[in-house]
Amino acid sequence: MKHSTILNFTEFYRFGNPFETEAVIINKEEFLYDDNSKLMYFDIYNEGESTFLKYKMNENDYIFGLGENLGSLNKRGRKYRMYATDDPNHTPEKEALYGSHPFIIVDGKEKFGLLIDYPGEIIFDIGYENINEIKIEIKSKDFELYIFDEEDKNEIIKEYLTLTGKPFVPPKWAWGYQQCRWSYPDEKTIKDIANKFRSKGIPCDAIYMDIDYMENYKVFTIDRKKFPEFEKMVKDLKEEGFNLVPIIDPGVKIEKEYSIYEEGVKQNYFCKNKDGNDFVTAVWPGLTHFPDFLNNETRNWWGKKYGIFTDLGIYSFWNDMNEPAIFYTLRSFNNVVKAAENMKNDVNMGINAFLAKDKMLAMSNSREDYKSFYHIDDSGNKINHDDVHNLYGFNMTRATVQGFDKLIPDYRYFLLSRSSYTGHHRYATIWTGDNHSWWEHMLVHIRMIQSLNLSGFFYTGADVGGFGCNSNPELVIRWMQLGAFTPLYRNHAALGTRNQEPWSFDSKTEDILTDIIKLRYAFLPYSYSEYMKSVEDLTPFIRPLFLEFDNDRVKQIEDQYMYGESLMVAPIYTPNSRGRYVHLPEDKWLVWIASNYSNRSMKVLQNGDYYIEADLKEIPVFIRENHMIVLSEPTKYVGEKNIEKIILTGLITDKGSYTYYEDDGVTNEYKKGNYAEISVNVSKKEGEYEVEAEIDTSEDYIPLLKEIKLEIYDEFGNRFNQTLSLK
Amino acid sequence: MKHSTILNFTEFYRFGNPFETEAVIINKEEFLYDDNSKLMYFDIYNEGESTFLKYKMNENDYIFGLGENLGSLNKRGRKYRMYATDDPNHTPEKEALYGSHPFIIVDGKEKFGLLIDYPGEIIFDIGYENINEIKIEIKSKDFELYIFDEEDKNEIIKEYLTLTGKPFVPPKWAWGYQQCRWSYPDEKTIKDIANKFRSKGIPCDAIYMDIDYMENYKVFTIDRKKFPEFEKMVKDLKEEGFNLVPIIDPGVKIEKEYSIYEEGVKQNYFCKNKDGNDFVTAVWPGLTHFPDFLNNETRNWWGKKYGIFTDLGIYSFWNDMNEPAIFYTLRSFNNVVKAAENMKNDVNMGINAFLAKDKMLAMSNSREDYKSFYHIDDSGNKINHDDVHNLYGFNMTRATVQGFDKLIPDYRYFLLSRSSYTGHHRYATIWTGDNHSWWEHMLVHIRMIQSLNLSGFFYTGADVGGFGCNSNPELVIRWMQLGAFTPLYRNHAALGTRNQEPWSFDSKTEDILTDIIKLRYAFLPYSYSEYMKSVEDLTPFIRPLFLEFDNDRVKQIEDQYMYGESLMVAPIYTPNSRGRYVHLPEDKWLVWIASNYSNRSMKVLQNGDYYIEADLKEIPVFIRENHMIVLSEPTKYVGEKNIEKIILTGLITDKGSYTYYEDDGVTNEYKKGNYAEISVNVSKKEGEYEVEAEIDTSEDYIPLLKEIKLEIYDEFGNRFNQTLSLK
Repeated sequence: MKHSTILNFTEFYRFGNPFETEAVIINKEEFLYDDNSKLMYFDIYNEGESTFLKYKMNENDYIFGLGENLGSLNKRGRKYRMYATDDPNHTPEKEALYGSHPFIIVDGKEKFGLLIDYPGEIIFDIGYENINEIKIEIKSKDFELYIFDEEDKNEIIKEYLTLTGKPFVPPKWAWGYQQCRWSYPDEKTIKDIANKFRSKGIPCDAIYMDIDYMENYKVFTIDRKKFPEFEKMVKDLKEEGFNLVPIIDPGVKIEKEYSIYEEGVKQNYFCKNKDGNDFVTAVWPGLTHFPDFLNNETRNWWGKKYGIFTDLGIYSFWNDMNEPAIFYTLRSFNNVVKAAENMKNDVNMGINAFLAKDKMLAMSNSREDYKSFYHIDDSGNKINHDDVHNLYGFNMTRATVQGFDKLIPDYRYFLLSRSSYTGHHRYATIWTGDNHSWWEHMLVHIRMIQSLNLSGFFYTGADVGGFGCNSNPELVIRWMQLGAFTPLYRNHAALGTRNQEPWSFDSKTEDILTDIIKLRYAFLPYSYSEYMKSVEDLTPFIRPLFLEFDNDRVKQIEDQYMYGESLMVAPIYTPNSRGRYVHLPEDKWLVWIASNYSNRSMKVLQNGDYYIEADLKEIPVFIRENHMIVLSEPTKYVGEKNIEKIILTGLITDKGSYTYYEDDGVTNEYKKGNYAEISVNVSKKEGEYEVEAEIDTSEDYIPLLKEIKLEIYDEFGNRFNQTLSLK
Repeated sequence: MKHSTILNFTEFYRFGNPFETEAVIINKEEFLYDDNSKLMYFDIYNEGESTFLKYKMNENDYIFGLGENLGSLNKRGRKYRMYATDDPNHTPEKEALYGSHPFIIVDGKEKFGLLIDYPGEIIFDIGYENINEIKIEIKSKDFELYIFDEEDKNEIIKEYLTLTGKPFVPPKWAWGYQQCRWSYPDEKTIKDIANKFRSKGIPCDAIYMDIDYMENYKVFTIDRKKFPEFEKMVKDLKEEGFNLVPIIDPGVKIEKEYSIYEEGVKQNYFCKNKDGNDFVTAVWPGLTHFPDFLNNETRNWWGKKYGIFTDLGIYSFWNDMNEPAIFYTLRSFNNVVKAAENMKNDVNMGINAFLAKDKMLAMSNSREDYKSFYHIDDSGNKINHDDVHNLYGFNMTRATVQGFDKLIPDYRYFLLSRSSYTGHHRYATIWTGDNHSWWEHMLVHIRMIQSLNLSGFFYTGADVGGFGCNSNPELVIRWMQLGAFTPLYRNHAALGTRNQEPWSFDSKTEDILTDIIKLRYAFLPYSYSEYMKSVEDLTPFIRPLFLEFDNDRVKQIEDQYMYGESLMVAPIYTPNSRGRYVHLPEDKWLVWIASNYSNRSMKVLQNGDYYIEADLKEIPVFIRENHMIVLSEPTKYVGEKNIEKIILTGLITDKGSYTYYEDDGVTNEYKKGNYAEISVNVSKKEGEYEVEAEIDTSEDYIPLLKEIKLEIYDEFGNRFNQTLSLK
């Protein structure tokens, strides 16, 4: 083991000879100097090929983190497996989902953070086997560890992000509403959907193209039978304010004369078998090869392919299936066929029928298959896939971004990936994969976006309304309310399930959903300002309450969260409810039982516990004392009109300030300082409010904001109005 | 349609020529007189072979009922299918479970109850397709309907139970703790488990024998290799206070010289194919026949078979697999083999691999198979199984009880069934089938026992700790707390999952679980008294709050319930929680954060909403103002000692009375009036308490109770103690 102390308070340990994942962005080589350190906090030992870390928890320790995983926000009581998997059934016992984010914060008698940088399998047992023990199994002796030896959880996260990179900034339109479906399969359907949004006056910024736009699921092709005028459609939609988001799958169909396949084979861009031949697997298109994204040349080749879309002005994509998902391989396929043949001779098998069925189901995503193929890294080393499994999606994203860097260097892109690894958040974000239209999955959504934010995925979200299974009007209303207060606001549904676009139910439901989406757009100036500031501050945008209010009670609250610095959200996520309990920590709060932008009736509540009533059309949100939010008139899509007027509202009992942020929303100019920050200070003195505004901008950026309408409440609920014109 | 008004307020409608299910116990023939009535409340029409009922709901109508089903207590927003199915994955979208209880209560602008007596498929769409509409599809034109035209929900339930029968009364030991596992496979294991309970001083009354006690899963056999001294084991365990509960499956293995098979074939006791041959299916033992329980002779034959156990003193059973579950038939088996063979030729199928897998999974519980076999009823009519599918478990239970009536006519029996139909509750009860060790399934448990109680299944429960998947210490603690306040208190776990007996975790967890189980036994006098009274009163034992406190808020509370008349339970069912919100309706309440019997520190709270803290070892329970509960010293098992002393506790601000019930607990003597009721009246007058006791008993029953210790609280939390000796 080698060790050094790095950054402000991070203890860095290298064990053995680890693969360089590039999860972290600092140059580590200069740091390693000390061979004799003892690992802090943990007992460490080897057994077989594995390394184990043990930590004795106190009864009231809280363990947070692990990014994209099921279970509660406090991760105690379960096992978690870091091994990316395409599991379409997120039932509560599942130990692994699509990504690997092996970063935890221990918050108890001792306080510290831990990041394990190892791209193969890691198992976290957090009080599962033994109620008061953390036991981590790293299936290797070659890995790196970082211990963030600091008590302040916000500081731990800042240092984690200093190490792994500043979160991804999507274009501003990403704060609009996004409509997805498996699938809108052709030009006509997509146009119809777009027209419906505009004719009904329901705001929308993006429409997704799921797998059926491709010709036989061949990546980087467009089925011209279904999309005869694809280019025109893209252009027309763009003019109407819609971004098209095509899905991109890594598996390349084995088909003579298909250029991606031919190039890949010729240039040796595909993963290999043990014998050096291209590895054969099967996904949507049937038999395929997997591009070897661990290889820089492969990444450059792949990245350029997005040009067929960027040339048309499409800068938005979702990279899917990149765990990588395996439907079957020749090996597992033959196993199933053999199992079925064996079964034939045993009609009297009874209980063994289950075993036969299990064999058939074991066809997909088999560990044996992941162990059977290889990467060649940039130095020509042959690496077994299983040892670096969790890097596949991460490197597919890097391949994409390497392409964008050349294709659209000045522009922001929108990029979702299904699989990810620590550090992925600096290139792109993820959505949380294939959830279900289950009420229970709303709480999963609420918990997971908090955990993901702790791991640097600030802009993220789940499929609103639920992907699998059929939804119903009430569930979609409640989920759309929740989704309106999450960064990625995408409604998505699976093949064969009930439609869940805003107009898919009765007219009353449509009215409610329209109001919710408009409310989302009214929050645009707040959402965007808060996001840009949170990225700059390295402070989660969706923040668990314990990052703000640090006590035992608050650490147990998993179903309320801060949306930016000023707003606490308490979504209703249970059926047939006309209210819910809410805990208001510390200060006073301005309560808004929000249903639409126009009705901004608010009242003041003291801290404490409340049963808050909220009718089907309403979601309770809470503005923190001496903090403010900004709103603007909803538009049809982000960027339809410049935001020249905003409303600034909040409860000011002493003084508060709000910093409104604006930039062009589409380019990377903001990185050069080309943005404006308009700060408004409101202070209460002897019953009167004093208001000051200050504009901070660069020479090259001219602010658009012209007017701020203040709606400030005092502790008695009296409202003070004032309009501020900016010059 | 024929119609008559029957009982107090029930409108009875007969459509077509329905099969007589015997769900109801009144002689209906004398009632039918009116051909011209219009069906109340519902629009009714036919489409194809189906009959549809439609009802327009108001936005704030509540719909309760449907017995064993998923979804919330208020059934709005979902579809429910009455078609018994062995589905081992109770994920939220599932429309059908093991039983059919087509009884609902509409509680809104209009109030009434509805029972549909039809044993084939019925689909209830309760605001799923259309948010404000009930749409019921009965897949037939031959059925009976009962509309309970009364506003009072308690009265509706009473009349429903007058129609369908008084709930089942198990022996008193059924209020003890019960330990199950798939499986304790042999004599040694069962003895070890029993010894462990006694040596550790953990109370227990029953140990279950899952399928592995049989010889090759042949019903009514005992594997003598595993149980060489079965009779002695039964006797020894009985002396130690343990009841053995063997599982009984309906499928009879096709095996020459196996007597049950030979008799069944010879006497024509099995269900038939279309061609009249015995229907062949497969369950645990491999190829089997299904007894035709619709036939009275078959039932008598089957019932007698329990004699091999009752002769040894085993009066307790669980009838399983009686939906009936079908692993496969020759037809579905051959389909799978064929699908696999087809697959062989299509290695490039890609997406179609899913379809192939689906075909394989469709092997079990296929509708096509249910349509392919027949019953012969007592009049010799051939009836397609699909049309009477939901009666199979009901009639297996009737077969069992017909046996008991001859074998042990004077004794109470303990009988669980997995499948059931309306009216089943008068013969025996059910458990809620194969749940999972998921926190989410604790809430399912809480909701389902309330719904089941509305349908007459007063004594019921779910597998505590969860059947499928692995549990963990905290989950088992919280679930064991919940289970302690449900009638059937059975811990059960599936093959291949983690052990979850009370000693299966660390010593601290064992201590907590021991205390919880003892607490359960301390509640024995209350549980039993309340149960016997609730059966007599036809008032649910587990009562949703809305049966007691009738307002909109209370109708939305699904996670608190009354356990008997005096006690409200608010279990903690979320991970890592040290408290929960509780609504206290109407009156004052005496709060007990209960962890063990000895620590009975209680405090008074006003009505309202509270966040109640409860440490891992604690469950909050609440005694209603001017009501009382009774407790006694925990014993090793029910009946170990006579209950001669009880503690009577409660909050008396004016006056209250408690009626303590006792009988022999094992025979049916109570039906002849051989029991005692000891009523204690406590009234507060000018700050002083007055206490009176009255004993009501028959000549042939001598009460055991000798002493009542009163621990009465006033509204200020002061405790008044008095000891009452009974002569």
